[in-house]
Amino acid sequence: MTLLEGLDYASVFVFALSGALVASRAQLDIVGFAFIASLTAVGGGTLRDVLLDRTPLWVAEPAYIGTAVAAAVLVFFTAHLFESRLKVLTWLDALALSVAVPAGVGVALASGHHWAVTLLMGIATGCFGGLMRDVVCNEVPLVLKQGELYVTAAFAGALAAVLALQLLPVGPALLLCAAVTFALRAGSLTFGWRLPVYKPRPPRT
Amino acid sequence: MTLLEGLDYASVFVFALSGALVASRAQLDIVGFAFIASLTAVGGGTLRDVLLDRTPLWVAEPAYIGTAVAAAVLVFFTAHLFESRLKVLTWLDALALSVAVPAGVGVALASGHHWAVTLLMGIATGCFGGLMRDVVCNEVPLVLKQGELYVTAAFAGALAAVLALQLLPVGPALLLCAAVTFALRAGSLTFGWRLPVYKPRPPRT
Amino acid sequence: MTLLEGLDYASVFVFALSGALVASRAQLDIVGFAFIASLTAVGGGTLRDVLLDRTPLWVAEPAYIGTAVAAAVLVFFTAHLFESRLKVLTWLDALALSVAVPAGVGVALASGHHWAVTLLMGIATGCFGGLMRDVVCNEVPLVLKQGELYVTAAFAGALAAVLALQLLPVGPALLLCAAVTFALRAGSLTFGWRLPVYKPRPPRT
Repeated sequence: MTLLEGLDYASVFVFALSGALVASRAQLDIVGFAFIASLTAVGGGTLRDVLLDRTPLWVAEPAYIGTAVAAAVLVFFTAHLFESRLKVLTWLDALALSVAVPAGVGVALASGHHWAVTLLMGIATGCFGGLMRDVVCNEVPLVLKQGELYVTAAFAGALAAVLALQLLPVGPALLLCAAVTFALRAGSLTFGWRLPVYKPRPPRT
Repeated sequence: MTLLEGLDYASVFVFALSGALVASRAQLDIVGFAFIASLTAVGGGTLRDVLLDRTPLWVAEPAYIGTAVAAAVLVFFTAHLFESRLKVLTWLDALALSVAVPAGVGVALASGHHWAVTLLMGIATGCFGGLMRDVVCNEVPLVLKQGELYVTAAFAGALAAVLALQLLPVGPALLLCAAVTFALRAGSLTFGWRLPVYKPRPPRT
Repeated sequence: MTLLEGLDYASVFVFALSGALVASRAQLDIVGFAFIASLTAVGGGTLRDVLLDRTPLWVAEPAYIGTAVAAAVLVFFTAHLFESRLKVLTWLDALALSVAVPAGVGVALASGHHWAVTLLMGIATGCFGGLMRDVVCNEVPLVLKQGELYVTAAFAGALAAVLALQLLPVGPALLLCAAVTFALRAGSLTFGWRLPVYKPRPPRT
């Protein structure tokens, strides 16, 4: 298994866990768990592959969907053990984001694209699986949480990778990408790091 | 017309009827009817074709959209005749699902894909047109109805086709696929067949 | 820069302004502005390019995303100057629609497609960027506003172009397309032009 495949499998597994947790909040049956888990797990990577005119990862290798279904079954039988599923969900999503961004960056690099396209593929691969999950399940998309670092974390991680590639080989650059993404997202969740949000001026009195 | 084209046309027409009924619930004008009907009708098949790197059905043959528009016009002028549009909608959607799943399976087969990809294309072709309709129109997606057999019906139908192909030629296998999908979905609507849903443990007292 | 590129850039910039205004209503941070602006700006064109099996505009030329980000930054620092952001948003969206429809028509023409496909690409390119923006941001999609001419304006503009091409060269036909789309959309907003909507019969008493 190559590094890129490893990143894709890891991101598929962890995003599938997060999708299955959302399915548990919607009280679906086990097939519903598998459906939402698979959509979340391969949504971002499929978009990336369609945009780059590659065969979608799970069409080339259906074991990705098997991985997502395994995660769904695991969550179906164990989710009741967690006291706060929302908290577990948020952290799993943070972890998945941190693996999916380098997976997107790595694939775009391997296809020899412009650095800006590479950066955007990292963001798209990271953010769109969770976005599809939230849109389909009627949850407020995490990308819309006011001021939380989410797209920002993906952007910073992808940017770190693109810059690091001037000095480092691909492997360490992707590791750095994952670390930066996770650090910012985790910092935002733990310490409340945020960017200033748009505030309309108060009406003059 | 080949069997596969026939399945695609049938699924386009019936899904378009269901889309137009949703448009009638949103009280759109006739162009809105045609838009939602077309989105619903070709959404799943277009996703399938993009994933399999084929020309989308209606780009290759615009008559598919003509079919969807005809269905939209029909519903615009007759929907008031039905006492319960929601009931008609639910059953049309069940019928469309039962035709779209074998349409997806058949196309994936014809492209020579792995059986698991074939299975997944059946599910995706069947479920995503209705999912797009419901997301755009702010209806609760049918795939999220707790415990109803919907994705499960698509899954069982596609699985039946994949297994039957060990013994039967393509035509009868696709017929079986449609029959299994419809039987499960109709049984769920009529007799309340369902899978157990995820239930969080009640808090200990 | 060719005429088609000019149309694409103009539609990207104006749709990005509209996306950023929606982001301001959701009180996002500047990266959120850039994300929603980019999604809105290239959503329709990306769909068109994927359907026609072309390299998506911004993958071929990342400057499109740079344009969208510039629009997002502009709105982040100036949106508070407008008294009614909803009104500005509606008119910017109308302008963007009027540029995106000919952009879609032009690209489909250049790829030598059937006139019906050309027409549909105009509608899809015009309508889907704003649709994605509204679905992601939980706004009521403009295509669903009862009786307002929106998809209808896109349809009429694209139809005008297809008909005019029998007599006129491409440039003037696309200009006519933009003019017809804008005239109908603006007339609907200003004078309340509308199509009759579907009305269920009142229950008999």
